[in-house]
Amino acid sequence: MSTARGYFVSFEGGDGVGKTTHISLLGDWLGEVTGREVVLTREPGGTELGSTLRQAVLHGEDLDPRTEALLYAADRAHHVATVVRPALARGAVVVTDRYLDSSVAYQAGGRELAEQEIEDLSRWATGSLLPDVTVLLDLDPVEAAGRLGGPPDRLERAGSDFHRRTREAFLRRAAADPDRWIVMDASAPREDVQAQIRVDVAARLGLTPAVPAHHPAERESP
Amino acid sequence: MSTARGYFVSFEGGDGVGKTTHISLLGDWLGEVTGREVVLTREPGGTELGSTLRQAVLHGEDLDPRTEALLYAADRAHHVATVVRPALARGAVVVTDRYLDSSVAYQAGGRELAEQEIEDLSRWATGSLLPDVTVLLDLDPVEAAGRLGGPPDRLERAGSDFHRRTREAFLRRAAADPDRWIVMDASAPREDVQAQIRVDVAARLGLTPAVPAHHPAERESP
Repeated sequence: MSTARGYFVSFEGGDGVGKTTHISLLGDWLGEVTGREVVLTREPGGTELGSTLRQAVLHGEDLDPRTEALLYAADRAHHVATVVRPALARGAVVVTDRYLDSSVAYQAGGRELAEQEIEDLSRWATGSLLPDVTVLLDLDPVEAAGRLGGPPDRLERAGSDFHRRTREAFLRRAAADPDRWIVMDASAPREDVQAQIRVDVAARLGLTPAVPAHHPAERESP
Repeated sequence: MSTARGYFVSFEGGDGVGKTTHISLLGDWLGEVTGREVVLTREPGGTELGSTLRQAVLHGEDLDPRTEALLYAADRAHHVATVVRPALARGAVVVTDRYLDSSVAYQAGGRELAEQEIEDLSRWATGSLLPDVTVLLDLDPVEAAGRLGGPPDRLERAGSDFHRRTREAFLRRAAADPDRWIVMDASAPREDVQAQIRVDVAARLGLTPAVPAHHPAERESP
């Protein structure tokens, strides 16, 4: 088995579902289990350029949907080229807070662009690099909003209809590709959710806890 | 004849060929001839967001080609949505210093991405809005470099091979679509070049100097 490539895990879901907490806990655990370097990162904003773009999208003037989609795609291309691919080449475990599924769910599910167009854009941006496993933390948008504090940004202001369509888009994508996706009920107690994430992620990555086992074939689109 | 839409003119060519001067002179003249509002603009950087992106591309860290292509496309989408289309809807004459042909020539002709990919990206970004006429100021890169002052930026540092391939890409595109392109020998005296630009642009736009004539059909890709 080649160990030249690491493991690539993404977390998806709306704001307020607990992604940050679960990523941190899972990252620590994956480091212990595999003995590998763990890289926790995020989109948008996982790089210096990404921070600039994130500012432009979330806090600048209103942008038309194509501009916004292209900025997210540029952030993703840069993130993959400078953070994700180098880390995977070092054999690290990469866990990212959002990846291309967020673009499809938010920009196509929540707005007016075609899902296939957004997906094609992200595929082009990343050279079709897909996660080995994607964890969807699924939660009713009203419950998620109750967990959120701080000043609202543009996405948070987008309204409950927007969030409902986005949630449905995530669930539709997960149902269409069950080999890649794990869907978690994020309304369950945090400890239970994390425990189940560990079991399911280890199974998908072919890890036996405490004994790193085989490595999945590199997952690139055809 | 509908006068609800203006005229859209782009200038292309390497740095140092005289685009800024000729755009300014032609813009003044078109304003006099047509009596219309004239909007002079540029890519990248014709908007506030564009200035941010231009800084990121020209003076930031080295970017991989896909990231760079997506940033230019985002700039173009924003420029078209917020400057070009509103001005054309007002019936203005829009003259832009660079448009999508620059992306194709620089990023595909000069670098390693496929020309069709870059063109598709720009077409998507702009909703396939093409200029009514595109003026190529063609000049040997060595002569153009001699005209340039100031500190070099990333594109200028890209080397003469890069500039030679870019020039060839512009000429190839012009030859493939002679209905849209006007090719000018920019080594000729400035007054002669500008005089010929006026004659050719007026003909393409269906203008008779001093008497605005018919309006060209809106030019969108099929």
